[in-house]
Amino acid sequence: MIVRTTAECDGTDREVVDPHGNWVSKRIVLGGDGVGFSFHETTINAGSVNEFHYANHIEAVWLVEGTGTLTDGETGQVYPLGPGSMYLLNGHERHTVTADTTMRMFCVFNPPVVGTEVHDENGVYPLVSVPPQSGRHRATPDA
Amino acid sequence: MIVRTTAECDGTDREVVDPHGNWVSKRIVLGGDGVGFSFHETTINAGSVNEFHYANHIEAVWLVEGTGTLTDGETGQVYPLGPGSMYLLNGHERHTVTADTTMRMFCVFNPPVVGTEVHDENGVYPLVSVPPQSGRHRATPDA
Repeated sequence: MIVRTTAECDGTDREVVDPHGNWVSKRIVLGGDGVGFSFHETTINAGSVNEFHYANHIEAVWLVEGTGTLTDGETGQVYPLGPGSMYLLNGHERHTVTADTTMRMFCVFNPPVVGTEVHDENGVYPLVSVPPQSGRHRATPDA
Repeated sequence: MIVRTTAECDGTDREVVDPHGNWVSKRIVLGGDGVGFSFHETTINAGSVNEFHYANHIEAVWLVEGTGTLTDGETGQVYPLGPGSMYLLNGHERHTVTADTTMRMFCVFNPPVVGTEVHDENGVYPLVSVPPQSGRHRATPDA
């Protein structure tokens, strides 16, 4: 049994800050925990527009607070987002999240994010199996 | 891409009510979604004491609201729980959750809960690979 708090992620490898300043992601469960998924709390700033693409990961996102929209980059379809909205990227879809107000969301990744992922030349996060490095990451990893 | 809301779970297979009336679990992602995990929002009533054991599943639980305690049934250790607390049952530990106030938590199961699990003769949830049946379940499944 492992017991942690969100506050314990602050200032560690588990807290990742978007280099553009649009979001912060706190990863309370990572690949190194060996349970087959990672589990993140992500806060997206009001007024930001964020393009994401996880070519190697499935992600589920469940909103707790905030409102905005999700645009499916493959189809162009736009979905409203609010507290209780959930989207499941089961087809590695490119997508855009626009935050009208500050959004707080819980995210599950399979396979788990390890913590050292950075964009490759195609803007895609690779699969990584090494344990996280020390230091706070600021290098565009998975939210 | 799948987009759903918590409200859409109400009154369906995805909403599971504890037969003792102590908790409600809304499973927005289930095994049938084919992504390797299930993702639940569980509300535990204030004043309730709940014994859980998932012999076949790993579970991560992250509290959003409420306070109480977690007792590791294997070691007897007691942990305080509050907003931002997370516990990861990576060793299939028997555990007791005591809710001092109403608790709201997000839970990830690996392997995914399918929706038809019921306690076996040892009080353990079996692995189930069939799709969920219709109707609202009230038969002591995973929270």
